[in-house]
Amino acid sequence: MNVSEIGKFALLDRLNAGFEAQQQSTVKSFDDAAVVAASSKPKQISSVTFLEGIHFNLVYTPLKHLGYKTVTHAVSKIAAMNALPQQILVSVGASSRFNVSDIESLYEGIHAACSEYSIDLVGNNVTTSMTGMAINITAIGEAPESSLCYTSGAKVNDLVCISGSLGAAYMGLQVLERERRIFESNRTQPKLDGYDYVLQKQLRPQARIDMLKAFEDNEIQPSSMTAITDGLASDILHVCKQSDAGVRIYIEKIPIASETFAVCKEMNFDAVTAALNGGDEFELLFTVPISEYERVRGLSGFEIIGYITDASQGAYLVTPEGNELKIKAQGWTSVTG
Amino acid sequence: MNVSEIGKFALLDRLNAGFEAQQQSTVKSFDDAAVVAASSKPKQISSVTFLEGIHFNLVYTPLKHLGYKTVTHAVSKIAAMNALPQQILVSVGASSRFNVSDIESLYEGIHAACSEYSIDLVGNNVTTSMTGMAINITAIGEAPESSLCYTSGAKVNDLVCISGSLGAAYMGLQVLERERRIFESNRTQPKLDGYDYVLQKQLRPQARIDMLKAFEDNEIQPSSMTAITDGLASDILHVCKQSDAGVRIYIEKIPIASETFAVCKEMNFDAVTAALNGGDEFELLFTVPISEYERVRGLSGFEIIGYITDASQGAYLVTPEGNELKIKAQGWTSVTG
Repeated sequence: MNVSEIGKFALLDRLNAGFEAQQQSTVKSFDDAAVVAASSKPKQISSVTFLEGIHFNLVYTPLKHLGYKTVTHAVSKIAAMNALPQQILVSVGASSRFNVSDIESLYEGIHAACSEYSIDLVGNNVTTSMTGMAINITAIGEAPESSLCYTSGAKVNDLVCISGSLGAAYMGLQVLERERRIFESNRTQPKLDGYDYVLQKQLRPQARIDMLKAFEDNEIQPSSMTAITDGLASDILHVCKQSDAGVRIYIEKIPIASETFAVCKEMNFDAVTAALNGGDEFELLFTVPISEYERVRGLSGFEIIGYITDASQGAYLVTPEGNELKIKAQGWTSVTG
Repeated sequence: MNVSEIGKFALLDRLNAGFEAQQQSTVKSFDDAAVVAASSKPKQISSVTFLEGIHFNLVYTPLKHLGYKTVTHAVSKIAAMNALPQQILVSVGASSRFNVSDIESLYEGIHAACSEYSIDLVGNNVTTSMTGMAINITAIGEAPESSLCYTSGAKVNDLVCISGSLGAAYMGLQVLERERRIFESNRTQPKLDGYDYVLQKQLRPQARIDMLKAFEDNEIQPSSMTAITDGLASDILHVCKQSDAGVRIYIEKIPIASETFAVCKEMNFDAVTAALNGGDEFELLFTVPISEYERVRGLSGFEIIGYITDASQGAYLVTPEGNELKIKAQGWTSVTG
């Protein structure tokens, strides 16, 4: 069935059917607007747009996974402020090549993410587009002012930490791109068995909201935080710029999963490059004062990968041999070795 | 200069240069996220997407006006809840046919609207698009719970009121479309002199935030409210559906400006049709209990156009002769005459 046949309001009714608010702060929900309750805590709002052909490729991205991933992305922006996401508003533009069941698949993923993250879908709008699909997610969160984190808060000597591991989403994309090329040249069905870990990280990434609970339980207040969306290299440089600081990152400390190493080896791809430049990992990059080292040790599932320096000392990777390589937004160049 | 030449962050710096926060509730502003202060009042959030070729035509819409109008639209959604807009986040996708000065023109309009409405631009993201331009505006507002209005609050016997006049934006669009056709067939320059009023309503419409002040000053609490974005016919039907109510609208009471009548006459177009079906007027359609009639009389710049009935009595237009015509989302059909 075509979207224009069912009509906008009937479609929205269908997409929203059976979902109840989970957050007490959700007061009212409309098509394209919502009301959230008064609160003694500041609110965080993030708005992210995803355009077909730029931010996603539907050749190998199932719509359900796309829906999930767009929510993960927007929610990660809130989590990166050490704030709990509570609501999202979704706006979708879709050309006539998408039918009602396509839009329903997209929303299946959106609802799955809402359920996973305990957030409410409070606003919803589906419109026509001339070409392709455009998705905007606005996420709303809440946190006490004292626990909020910004990219601007890193201080000299702070430890630089990263949750989970890096490079997997990037290698998942390389696998999907390779299979797409093979399919397009000789119509061979994609072989995706055995790549579960990297494909999961690429297609159905998680926002690390669990880390926020771990921070709270261990009474850890990060001095700065961001989510890895552009790649570790770009994102740490952004933290350095915003905090007017430098950094030293130890290459051998950057966490890379064994599954990611295996795919890198098979595809003859440098794993550190994947870890430095791969975007859409959604892991949390955060800094903590060195005085909190003992408390940070109590956290599991993260690595200390370096430390913050004075801005005058620049932003460098340190090799196991002690050489220093200047960090660039994409890749890096050697200055000492 | 091309957007990719200047780079995303340099472009954002340029677009944001020289603008200071006007709202006390603005705590922090990032590229694609913001923090607003804790408040004893609920927050309203609205997210609206505009796609080239669907929601706007750049053949006759200057980018500066487009920027202004998209803000007006998003802000109107907040105002329609009887809430004051305070912040917006903007997300723009633009293909390579747009250069830096195009994006700057768009933002000139966005900043002009922010200044007009005393709101802060707190989030900003510019990304590449495959084709055309996509704009998302997220607007954030604040209001005491007791003064919030929804489309669901209309009650039997409430007066139905409309601010300003209708049909002008629609006729402005007809003028622009006519001149576009003439230009495309014989390259004659568009003749737009003498159409100031309708063109202004189409290209640079105002959000009626001034009405909120008037409500407050006159201690008027609308029982329901919406902004005319889809057309009076569609929007009043939406209020009726949400409020489980019917309505009688007196055709001769629908406010239509003399300038709009003149353009309708010249183009041989029915003015009431323009007033009923024209979207993007952004006038406020509101209902008030009949007990507030005396206070409502004190308001200027609005008209009482009808009254709310029981749902069983349906939604009808009443002609000067007393005939009743069923209201349809687009146009209407006679049932009695």
